[in-house]
Amino acid sequence: MSENSANIGVVGLAVMGSNLARNLASREGNTVAVYNRSRAKTDELVTEHPEAGFVPAFSYEEFAASLQKPRTAVIMVKAGRATDAVIESLVEVFEPGDIIVDGGNALFTDTIRREKAVRETGINFVGMGVSGGEEGALRGPSIMPGGSDESWVTLGPILTSIAAVAEGEPCVTHVGHNGAGHFVKMVHNGIEYADMQLIAEAYDLIRRGTGKTPAQIADVFAEWNRGELESYLIEITAEVLRQVDADTQKPLVDVILDQAGAKGTGAWTVQTALSLGVPVSGIAEATFARSLSSHAEQREVSRGLPGPADDAQSNWTVEDPEAFIEKIRLALYASKIVAYSQGFDEIRAGAAEYDWKIDLGAVSKIWRGGCIIRAQFLNRIAEAYDTETELPVLLTAPYFVEALQRAQAAWREVVATSARVGIPAPAFSSSLAYYDGLRADRLPAALIQGQRDFFGAHTYKRIDKDGTFHTLWSGDRSEIEAEDTH
Amino acid sequence: MSENSANIGVVGLAVMGSNLARNLASREGNTVAVYNRSRAKTDELVTEHPEAGFVPAFSYEEFAASLQKPRTAVIMVKAGRATDAVIESLVEVFEPGDIIVDGGNALFTDTIRREKAVRETGINFVGMGVSGGEEGALRGPSIMPGGSDESWVTLGPILTSIAAVAEGEPCVTHVGHNGAGHFVKMVHNGIEYADMQLIAEAYDLIRRGTGKTPAQIADVFAEWNRGELESYLIEITAEVLRQVDADTQKPLVDVILDQAGAKGTGAWTVQTALSLGVPVSGIAEATFARSLSSHAEQREVSRGLPGPADDAQSNWTVEDPEAFIEKIRLALYASKIVAYSQGFDEIRAGAAEYDWKIDLGAVSKIWRGGCIIRAQFLNRIAEAYDTETELPVLLTAPYFVEALQRAQAAWREVVATSARVGIPAPAFSSSLAYYDGLRADRLPAALIQGQRDFFGAHTYKRIDKDGTFHTLWSGDRSEIEAEDTH
Repeated sequence: MSENSANIGVVGLAVMGSNLARNLASREGNTVAVYNRSRAKTDELVTEHPEAGFVPAFSYEEFAASLQKPRTAVIMVKAGRATDAVIESLVEVFEPGDIIVDGGNALFTDTIRREKAVRETGINFVGMGVSGGEEGALRGPSIMPGGSDESWVTLGPILTSIAAVAEGEPCVTHVGHNGAGHFVKMVHNGIEYADMQLIAEAYDLIRRGTGKTPAQIADVFAEWNRGELESYLIEITAEVLRQVDADTQKPLVDVILDQAGAKGTGAWTVQTALSLGVPVSGIAEATFARSLSSHAEQREVSRGLPGPADDAQSNWTVEDPEAFIEKIRLALYASKIVAYSQGFDEIRAGAAEYDWKIDLGAVSKIWRGGCIIRAQFLNRIAEAYDTETELPVLLTAPYFVEALQRAQAAWREVVATSARVGIPAPAFSSSLAYYDGLRADRLPAALIQGQRDFFGAHTYKRIDKDGTFHTLWSGDRSEIEAEDTH
Repeated sequence: MSENSANIGVVGLAVMGSNLARNLASREGNTVAVYNRSRAKTDELVTEHPEAGFVPAFSYEEFAASLQKPRTAVIMVKAGRATDAVIESLVEVFEPGDIIVDGGNALFTDTIRREKAVRETGINFVGMGVSGGEEGALRGPSIMPGGSDESWVTLGPILTSIAAVAEGEPCVTHVGHNGAGHFVKMVHNGIEYADMQLIAEAYDLIRRGTGKTPAQIADVFAEWNRGELESYLIEITAEVLRQVDADTQKPLVDVILDQAGAKGTGAWTVQTALSLGVPVSGIAEATFARSLSSHAEQREVSRGLPGPADDAQSNWTVEDPEAFIEKIRLALYASKIVAYSQGFDEIRAGAAEYDWKIDLGAVSKIWRGGCIIRAQFLNRIAEAYDTETELPVLLTAPYFVEALQRAQAAWREVVATSARVGIPAPAFSSSLAYYDGLRADRLPAALIQGQRDFFGAHTYKRIDKDGTFHTLWSGDRSEIEAEDTH
């Protein structure tokens, strides 16, 4: 080991950590110190990748000594207690001004807590979202760092060197202070849930409505990937649908058990949105659709439940498959606009709540490459926020209004059809209901306020004058002015 | 003050607390000690209600001294820090074997924490859900106590004396240990959100589709209240819709601002369901519909968004109003069955997670009186659980299957219509999508698993053999067996 020879270090050398370390090492100007709790992983990585010129360390003391100041270390361990343990160890050997980066999938409130605790030692703590999976970590992820401005001075150039590049721009930006990076990464994953569910609903409707095979539907998705839906998820959907199982010679998608797993970031996104009062119904429906699918026992006892007369499982097909597919495409696009609009709404609300200055246009740009939801479409979002930084609802930007206008007849028909023939399309239909709720002149929320005032004296406001009011429902039913806080 | 003269005490004499104290005092055999942080409220209550024979206390010491052993006190303060402060004070003056009851709207995880802490002193702590608002507290609420079996021995008879009575049975049961009572109360409120949203959607569709006035729609709800929808919420909906504003002579519902408030229990229910992996999409959509309605600025900028050609806000009406109203009634009933099924699913999952023995039939019975969601319908739920205690999905009970069968053509048509004409019906459509998801032979979750395996090597299971598998997507695309935990 040579002292002060590395400009960055990585702690935790499982596949994400070692790939990120290799990515760092491959870029001009970086020398990477590596440390893992068990020595074997470190040895293996160093031996297998001599080209990387890693500086291995076998204790935290060695690790710290190998780093130039300000020392900069990226933690890549499973989010949770392990993260706290590594932070504690690093704090012992680091000095004020050094930088500890957590690149795991931490909940942003944990990051806020950790940043606060570490800051007291004078060391910088940066929670950093990394998207793109193993492949992205190795070749260029989308990176969402939070933390202090001071740490960004050192960290910025290093992260810029390893991030994915989209249209000439690196997919990294200083998102905001303390937990902002992990917050944005969380919402990224929530949007990913919605996007995947929408694609799944599109596939299901096409398959049942047209009788096309998965391979034929792969062609549909490949075609869509040449248009406004162009995105990584559409692209890999085609790949997955085209895959044939070697054992059975059936389409792979037909031998995969239809119970979707989840690692919790979708649920976090919705739970956080509920605390912030942001309706992210598309992400919620997507998350619930996965949990519903995984309740095998409940589905088993429910299989006999009556379906519609015109049941998709028996005798429904569309008359004009190509026209139907185009309608599905439009419904998917419109619903996707809603899902992203809801996601950005959550980021906006989170920034307001936690006092982060988040450039929403910059966020959409760093998602254009490296990450799972990378898509053409994100350029349109960037344009919308470039034009109007404080846009209160993303989908009201002119480009999206035009797209929704163009798509909506098809969107409505697809939702109506799914209801009629009994194919579940929770994300399609929820997105449409959100859209119609948003644009409504008047919502029946007024009746809900009346009910709440009736049974709980929760009071209501009026459209025609200021103040807070209560009707004496169990009295003479006259109206009185009430205290706002009742 | 006379020593040991009271068999129960109430701490916190705001309207809920004083009403509960009066209720207790009005029942044979109860003598009620009362204490409030500020003396004025205590004096006022005692002076205004000499008939109650209250035993006023002006310190915690006096309060404790006035109670027979085991001392039993119900805390009725605003949930949060105030609750902790009162508990601390009571613990100081109470003895092992005494009982502290929190009758506030506490989050069940707080109750679990408090019960654990208080138990160490030998004192019993009972988290108790109380539903029915101020009126219920006074005349007979639905009561959902958790806590130990020991405390139930003393508490049971007292609570039974004050609870609402439905069909001869008191609306109280020992729900389960520690936080079980507050958990069940939380889900009660979540179901209440869904029920109210469904009613609001029904009203909105009828109004726009038929052009009937609120007063005429009040007649519709009054009529519905004589059938299978009979319930407190349907009843008060008719009352609210019939109310005329004295100022403007308009229907009150038309002068109430259409921005629904919320006190957070709906959000808690959904957040908890997400942690438990239970799809409560109806409650989620209801919660989101309220938050959407309250975002005035976002709605303002969205008012110009394009609607369908056949827009409900301009020129849509149904041809046969009476037939349409009957369809709405059926859609409401079917969606309500889904909402309750989802709610009971959450209680079932909560009981499994927190090791509570909850009798779901008993829960449905204590909701038949006193609380906001009291309804005829709960007898059907009780029957379903009486027949099959471990019913995995409530809506698969024969009575509900028959009802869903009968309702579904109308339900599907109503959802399709709302999509077509642009009236938001998020809870109707979400309930239907859930139903169709549950009964599906095969869900597109298989595609989602394929995508997850592609971009994150998250692996999948197969329908035809045990094990966990991964396709080498960036390799030769062969399939390998993988570790389950990847």
